[in-house]
This record gives sequence, C-alpha cells and structure tokens, in this order.
Amino acid sequence: MLVVKKFGGSSVANKERIFNVAKRCIEDYKKGDDVIVVLSAMGDTTDELIAKAKEINPHAKKREMDMLLATGEQISVSLMAMAMDSLGVPAVSLNAFQVSMHTTSKYSNARFKRIDSERIRHELDARKIVIVTGFQGVNKYDDYTTLGRGGSDTTAVALAAALHADSCEIFTDVEGVYTADPRIVKDAKKMKEITYDEMLELATLGARVLHNRSVEMAKKYGVQLVVRSSLNTADGTVVKEETSMERMLISGVAADKDTARISVIALKDEPGIAFRLFNLLAKNNINIDIILQSVGRDGTKDISFTVATDDAEATIALIEDNKNHITAKKVELETEVAKLSIVGAGMMSNPGVAAKMFEALYNVRVNIKMISTSEIRVTVLIDEKNIEKGLQAIHDAFSLAD
Amino acid sequence: MLVVKKFGGSSVANKERIFNVAKRCIEDYKKGDDVIVVLSAMGDTTDELIAKAKEINPHAKKREMDMLLATGEQISVSLMAMAMDSLGVPAVSLNAFQVSMHTTSKYSNARFKRIDSERIRHELDARKIVIVTGFQGVNKYDDYTTLGRGGSDTTAVALAAALHADSCEIFTDVEGVYTADPRIVKDAKKMKEITYDEMLELATLGARVLHNRSVEMAKKYGVQLVVRSSLNTADGTVVKEETSMERMLISGVAADKDTARISVIALKDEPGIAFRLFNLLAKNNINIDIILQSVGRDGTKDISFTVATDDAEATIALIEDNKNHITAKKVELETEVAKLSIVGAGMMSNPGVAAKMFEALYNVRVNIKMISTSEIRVTVLIDEKNIEKGLQAIHDAFSLAD
Repeated sequence: MLVVKKFGGSSVANKERIFNVAKRCIEDYKKGDDVIVVLSAMGDTTDELIAKAKEINPHAKKREMDMLLATGEQISVSLMAMAMDSLGVPAVSLNAFQVSMHTTSKYSNARFKRIDSERIRHELDARKIVIVTGFQGVNKYDDYTTLGRGGSDTTAVALAAALHADSCEIFTDVEGVYTADPRIVKDAKKMKEITYDEMLELATLGARVLHNRSVEMAKKYGVQLVVRSSLNTADGTVVKEETSMERMLISGVAADKDTARISVIALKDEPGIAFRLFNLLAKNNINIDIILQSVGRDGTKDISFTVATDDAEATIALIEDNKNHITAKKVELETEVAKLSIVGAGMMSNPGVAAKMFEALYNVRVNIKMISTSEIRVTVLIDEKNIEKGLQAIHDAFSLAD
Repeated sequence: MLVVKKFGGSSVANKERIFNVAKRCIEDYKKGDDVIVVLSAMGDTTDELIAKAKEINPHAKKREMDMLLATGEQISVSLMAMAMDSLGVPAVSLNAFQVSMHTTSKYSNARFKRIDSERIRHELDARKIVIVTGFQGVNKYDDYTTLGRGGSDTTAVALAAALHADSCEIFTDVEGVYTADPRIVKDAKKMKEITYDEMLELATLGARVLHNRSVEMAKKYGVQLVVRSSLNTADGTVVKEETSMERMLISGVAADKDTARISVIALKDEPGIAFRLFNLLAKNNINIDIILQSVGRDGTKDISFTVATDDAEATIALIEDNKNHITAKKVELETEVAKLSIVGAGMMSNPGVAAKMFEALYNVRVNIKMISTSEIRVTVLIDEKNIEKGLQAIHDAFSLAD
C-alpha cells in the first residue's frame, strides 16, 4: 500500500510533536506500506518569515516572498528526516525542486500542473520514508512558487494523484468532519463519510477543515481523502465521490461570521443600475456573495449583498465615491451578521429541506435576513448573536446527533 | 564591468545592515556595472539551525544537515532582493538549484565541479542585481550540499571564475590583510597587495581573513580578489598572482595559538619507530604539523610534534594505549605554546630571512622551541605568553610598519 500523510504546522511545532508524527508514520512503514509524508512549516514559522519580509519591504515582490517562505517547509522536512533516522528508519526529505513539483507561474497562488514521480519512486523503492515540502512548487522560470495558505493539503492530494496512492490522510487538530462545530453544538457528531461536493460547500462555508482546492483536486482525480486527528488514532471522516450509507437529508450545518451586509438604498428602478453597481465591485476585485434586490417602489429599489468582513470598508468607500454614477441615495453597513448553511447531497431530491430549515429557525425566533441556495446547500443570513441558537435548532430538526 | 561581491553573515545580520549592503551594491549598479552579490546566512542563523538539528538528532545525516542549512542563505538572499527592490533597483535572488551550482557529492564538505552561467547571465542582461546563496551547491543526486564553514568565499570566487568577472570583492569586518594582527601589533600596516601563495600561508597560519579553498580556487582560475571592509569604503588588499611592488623581504607575520606540543620520550633508537608512531596518528585522522626528532643517545631518542589543540587529548590517549608498540617510555603535553610565522614570496631569493627572524626573537629573549619552514614561510614554536613580544620584534626587525 502507498499512503500519503499530511501534517500541518502545529503538528510539527516542536521536538516532541515532530517525534510523535515520526512514530506515527513509522508504524505504517513497519507494516510494509510505502509512506510519503507532506509537511507544512513548523508552528508560526511562515508568519515569522512574513513579518521579517514586511520589516524589509512591506510591498515585497511575490516572487521573493515565495523564495523566502519556501524555506519554512524545507526546515520541517529535514528535521523530520533526522527524527525518523534517529528512530532507526531510513528517511529522505525532498523539496519542490527535488521532486519536481511543477506549477503555474503565478507567485503566492500557484496551481499544480505536473508532479514528477521518478525521484519519489526511487526513494520508496530503496525503502525510505519520503518527506516532501508542502505548500510549494517550481514554475517554468525555475522559481519557487507557493500555493497560498493551506496549500499543503493540495500538495498531499496532488502527490496522491500523481503516484496513485491508495490513501491520502490529512491530519488536523480535529477528529474529522462534524455535523456542526462541536465547540458550539455539543451533540455534534463526527461523520463517517462525506462527498466531495458536500465537503466543498462546507469548506467555503466556514467549516475550515480542508483547503478547498485540495478537495476540488481530490474530486477531479478521484483521490479518497481521510480527515483525522494527529493527536489520537480515532477513525476520521472519509471524503469521496459517493457515500455508501443511506443518504441523509443533510450532512451538516455550518456558521460563518466572516461576512458583512451592505445595503444600497433608493437606487433608480431602471434597467442597468444593478449592472453598474456590481460591475464597479467586480472591477475592484470585491467578491460579493448573497444578493437581495427589493421590489421597486416609488421609482426606486434597494439592493443588499454580503461581502467578506475584510472587504466591507473598501466596498462602502467605493460606493460612496460612485454614488451619483450608480444613483444611490444611501449606503448602510451591518457587520454583526453571520451565514448559517446546511449542506447535503441528499437535498437535491428532497424539496422540503429548505422549508424545514426555515421552520426550525422560526421555532426559536431567529429572523432570516437573506437567503441563498445551491443544489446541495441552503444559506441564510442571520444576526450573529443567534448563531448558537440557530445551529442547535437546525441540528435538532434534522436529527443530526442520532 | 562584472563584479562579484561577497558579504558574510554579520554584514546581513539585521534590517539596517541588509540595507547598508544593498546601498553599497546599488552604487556599483548605478555606475553601469553588472553586479552579482553572494551572501551567507544572516548572523547566527546557521548556528541556530545546527542547534535545532542537534536537539532532534545529535548524529543527523549530513545529507539532511545540508538540506536544513541551505535554508539559511535562501532567507538572506530573498530578503536582500526585497531590500534592493524597495530602493527602486530590480534584483533577483537565486539558490544553488536555480543557478545551478554543481558540486561533488560529499555532504557538508563538497567542492565545486561546475557552475552554469546561463540563468545569471539572463538576469544580468535584464539589468537585475543577482543575489546568490553562498555556501551551498547541488550534487549529482540533486541534493543540497554545503561547502563547509566559510564556503561563501569559495562560492564568490567560483562565480567570478565561471562568469569571467572583472573583480571579486570579499567584504569582511577588517579593512584588508595586515602585516600583523592589528589588535596585537599597533603599528601593523594594511598591505596593498599580496600573492595567492602568501595569502594561503597566512590563511592556514591563523590570519583567518579568507577561506583557504577560496584562495586556492582564485589562484587556479586567476581570479583577482579584493579583501575589504563592509563598514567603510577604504581600499582593501588585492590578492593576485604577482605583486607589482618592489618585492618586500616578507609580507607579514602571524601567530596561531591553536596548537599543542606533544613529546614522546625515550623511544627505541631503531629504524621504523618513527613510522610506527606517525602511521598510528595518520590512521586516526590526526594531522601533525611541525616535527622535531632529537639526536639519539643511550639507544633512545625523543620525538616532538604539534597538533591542533582540539586533537591534543585524543593524541595523548592514543599514544598511551600504544606505548609498547611504539616503544615509548613517556608522553608529555604542552598547550601553552603558539606558532609564529613570517610569510613572504621574497624570501625565496634571500637566504638570510630565517636568521633575521631568529635574531629578532633572541634580542627580546623569546626562546624558540621548534622550527619549520616552507619556500615562502618560516614558522617557530614559542611560549604562548611571548606572542605579543615576538610579533612586535619581528615586525620591527623587518620594518613592516614603514
């Protein structure tokens, strides 16, 4: 069996943890498996390197940032090889050049194009554990690139795909994917299985267990993922194309506080006005999420939409500057809001799911401000203070704890 | 003009120093020169990485040590590129893979085999300052190697040779090469020029200004070196094949405290005994330096020799263990000794030089314990407490301050 195991920065933050990871990987190796380990930079290394760069040049070129940041993973993989070696198991660390992991040329946000398997195969054939730097690649200019935050998940999946691994395990500080955030909903349950599509909706919706692109890539190449704890040996959650269980109506419920509602008041009720507004935002790289347009009245209409909290101020300023162009009277900002979403491949064939969610919220007097849906997701905007109450009510209504 | 400039770790230890180096290189760039900068790891980075490795595995494989240590220079070169960029000058950092700098496969002590000039030429043609990681290379296995301590000097010389640079400047914390250590001999004078051979004798003799291998390589490829201060713009010392000045009798005088004398007493005065002793030491990788054998008397003889201070205890233990085999009665150790050497290409044609040195020492009552000579060097062993007096006497006798 060929297994890929990915451990994040906190799992290798110090000597003790490095040895924990080493021992864990050696168990599989001693069973006879071929083992590839993907590591992130130790603890806060990446943040420290970014701080160093900012001190020198707050607007450093991304090409040089990637050159700098790539050192972080190289440190963790070489130390891990030393740890395994001291436990009597042959190991070798490889960086993006040595593997080679080819990416697009876009610095700080590159995507994998091709991964050579030759060097890794060679080392596995020599019965070594192969430890690979996550998060980084090499572009056609022979420069380091990085994949963006959380990119080590993507490295693990890409390696699993390139080498046709039998399993790809993503080790995290939680035991798997839950029906809801267990810190908020006490009876939240760990899922045994979840589909790629459900995981994708959950990942974008604030249940930040897996890096989104890693799930997309896993789906594309049919790499079965296991999300599990680096702290214990409990079974994790399997992410795959089709779940074998009898389909649940919904898989889970997630909350996302990183959102703000902006309302543009009393726009002229004419064709093309909404276009002007959203074209303006798009040109300024502001991603909008849920949109609500009021029915026109007195020749005017209101448009509300949500943006990421970080973009809220810039959005308000932009609209204020272009008030006349977009014919707006007033702009309002609301930040104490949150998105609550249910996700489930089962809802495609069950029209009553959204209604059941709304009823559950109504029963606990949680007001719904906006609604948005996809094939396998229903999202509502509510007051932030209602997150806990809302999550629990939905969790109960769909019997997710059973 | 194509110039290579090498700065050590202390020259890039913090933000302020990084910008000092950046500005200094930019001056040449703005004059129209093509500039290649070679950097070591910042400040104590290498020592910190070694400490981290020791914590994980005190006997870490050298292959993994080199993988770890190579990150140090990659951090300094990327930060330097950011600094230059913030000063408005285009710069690009390159590591051993990107250049490529091919070395022998011996980890932690590799030697350059070949340096590709294509990528560097390409970046220079685009009018960028090229910042290259010192100290590291890549071997035929596509693994990082390092050149051993001080290897960044060698990187600079190798690059200057490969790219046919017009000058190779080694920036240090001293202003150049002196006729004697200026901290001891107050009227020591900075030399304008010195030959490769003289520099080699001085480097091995404790005037640790340049890494020895870098001088050997400079000699081999005819790369003219300039040793100068990173703190001011004073002219440094030029190291080249032939000095143009009227030949001085000697160039300088150096002291080396890192030596110990071992005396093996009352060996049998028979053929083959000295061989047994030195063969034993060679087999145990102990380098010996000056050797003195007494004239035989009562069928026995004494042999004294010097070793590096670090090897002294091991040498004593080794001889004690093999006392019978080498027929020794007793072993004595003396550590409070030092080597005093004069160096000068001019002494080849002047037989009286050694005598003049001995006379100078006699005049200040410094006893000579052992003597060793090469074509351009005379070394004597004296009591450590006499270093200052001896250096000054020789410096005066040869009028080095004039």
